[in-house]
Amino acid sequence: MVAGVKAILFDTFGTVVDWRGSLIAELTAFGAARGIAADWTGLVDAWRGNYAPSMDRVRKGEQPWTKLDDLHRATLDELVVKFGVTGLSEADLDHINRGWHRLKPWPDAVAGLTRLKAKYTIGPLSNGNVALLLNMAKNAGIPWDMICAAELFRHYKPDPETYLGAAALLGLEPGEVMMAAAHNGDLHAARKCGLKTAFFPRVTEYGPHQSRDFAADGPFDVVAADIEDLAGKMGC
Amino acid sequence: MVAGVKAILFDTFGTVVDWRGSLIAELTAFGAARGIAADWTGLVDAWRGNYAPSMDRVRKGEQPWTKLDDLHRATLDELVVKFGVTGLSEADLDHINRGWHRLKPWPDAVAGLTRLKAKYTIGPLSNGNVALLLNMAKNAGIPWDMICAAELFRHYKPDPETYLGAAALLGLEPGEVMMAAAHNGDLHAARKCGLKTAFFPRVTEYGPHQSRDFAADGPFDVVAADIEDLAGKMGC
Repeated sequence: MVAGVKAILFDTFGTVVDWRGSLIAELTAFGAARGIAADWTGLVDAWRGNYAPSMDRVRKGEQPWTKLDDLHRATLDELVVKFGVTGLSEADLDHINRGWHRLKPWPDAVAGLTRLKAKYTIGPLSNGNVALLLNMAKNAGIPWDMICAAELFRHYKPDPETYLGAAALLGLEPGEVMMAAAHNGDLHAARKCGLKTAFFPRVTEYGPHQSRDFAADGPFDVVAADIEDLAGKMGC
Repeated sequence: MVAGVKAILFDTFGTVVDWRGSLIAELTAFGAARGIAADWTGLVDAWRGNYAPSMDRVRKGEQPWTKLDDLHRATLDELVVKFGVTGLSEADLDHINRGWHRLKPWPDAVAGLTRLKAKYTIGPLSNGNVALLLNMAKNAGIPWDMICAAELFRHYKPDPETYLGAAALLGLEPGEVMMAAAHNGDLHAARKCGLKTAFFPRVTEYGPHQSRDFAADGPFDVVAADIEDLAGKMGC
C-alpha cells in the first residue's frame, strides 16, 4: 500500500504488452501466409530502435507534433526498403503498422489490472496515441477506466507535461497518482514531477538485446514482480 | 444497424444520467442530515439553468477556458447566497459541487451500454470534464472504453471542434462515429460535422419544467426508446 494513491497509470509498450513477441509473431505469420521471406525479427527490432529517436525529434521541436501511428509508419516505410521487403500494398503497410494496435498483454497484465481497477482508477500513460491504446485495449480485453496518452498533451514522455497533465486531467494532485512502469527512466521522470512510482521488471522485453531495466535503480515507492504482485502490494 | 459505425459517443447529463433526480435526492438528504432547510429542488434547477449560459461565456471568448467543475462551483457559490443557504464550510461546498461526479444512471443505461460495448467502442462526449466523467463512471459502474470530454479540446459542445476532435482521437472518419443524445440540438450539431446520430428521449429530465426534446425533430439515423433499445437497433 502507498497512502493517498487514487489512480495508477501504466506505461504500456513493454510494461503491459509484449510488443516484440507480438509483432514478430504477427509479421512472421503474415510473411508465411503471403509467401514473403524477410528478416521480420530484425525489422521489428529496428522498428522499435527508431522509437525514441523519432519521438526525440518531436520533443526537441525539430518536427511538429506527430502522433505515434504516424511516426511508426514513417519508420516502417524506411525499413521495408532497408530490409528488402517487396510486394506490399498500401493496405498491407497500414495493416502492418496497425500491428501496434494488436499487441498482446503479458500473462499477468489483465488479471492484475482487473484487481487494481476495483480500488483505483487505472489507465495507460503511454506515448501511444489514443486510437492505438483504445484499439489495443478492446482487442486484448485490457480493462482501462480511461485512456491517457501523450497525444492529449502534445508532448512525449519523459516531458513533464505528460505526467503533470495526466494528474490535472484526473483532478488529482501529482502525489495521488502512481506511475507504474518496467522502465527506470520513465519512473525517474514521473518521480521528479511528484508522482508516486512502481517498478516491475520485464526482462525479456528486448529478447536477446535486453541491456537494462533488469531491476529497479531508484527509490521507487513499490518494487514488484509483475502487475499481479503490484495488485497485492497495493491492497487489492 | 447503421453501416460503418465503429464508435458510439454519448451525451451524458440527461442522456445517460439523471442529473436532476440525483442532485435533488442527494441535497435533500444532505440538508436533512445537517439540519439545513432550503429549497434544494429550486437550487438544483437554478444550478442547471446556468449551465448553458456559463459555457456560452467560454464559447464566445468572454472568459478563458474553464472546466465544468469550476463553472459549476462559481454558480453554486452564487446560488447558496441567493437561496439563503448558510452554515456551509468550504469542504461542504466542494462536496456538494462533486455531486455532479456522483450522478446516477437512468435504469436502462448500464445494461444498454454493456451490450453496445461488445460490438462498438463506447465513451461519453460530454461537456463534463474528464475527472467528473471518470469519477461518475467509477461510482456508477458505467463501462466506458475511454473518456472523451470537451476539456480535451478546450471547446464546449456544440462547437464543431468537439465532434471532429473526438473522431480524430478515435482515429476514425466522422461518419464512423455515432453521437447518441436525448437532445436534438446536440445531434443537429454532430450531424453537421458528418457524424451519425441516434436520439432517444428522456422526457422527465427536467421534471415539471421539461419543455422540449420530447421527440426527435431531425432526420437522425436511429430513433430509439432508450439505450437498451438503441443496443437492439445497433445489432447488439
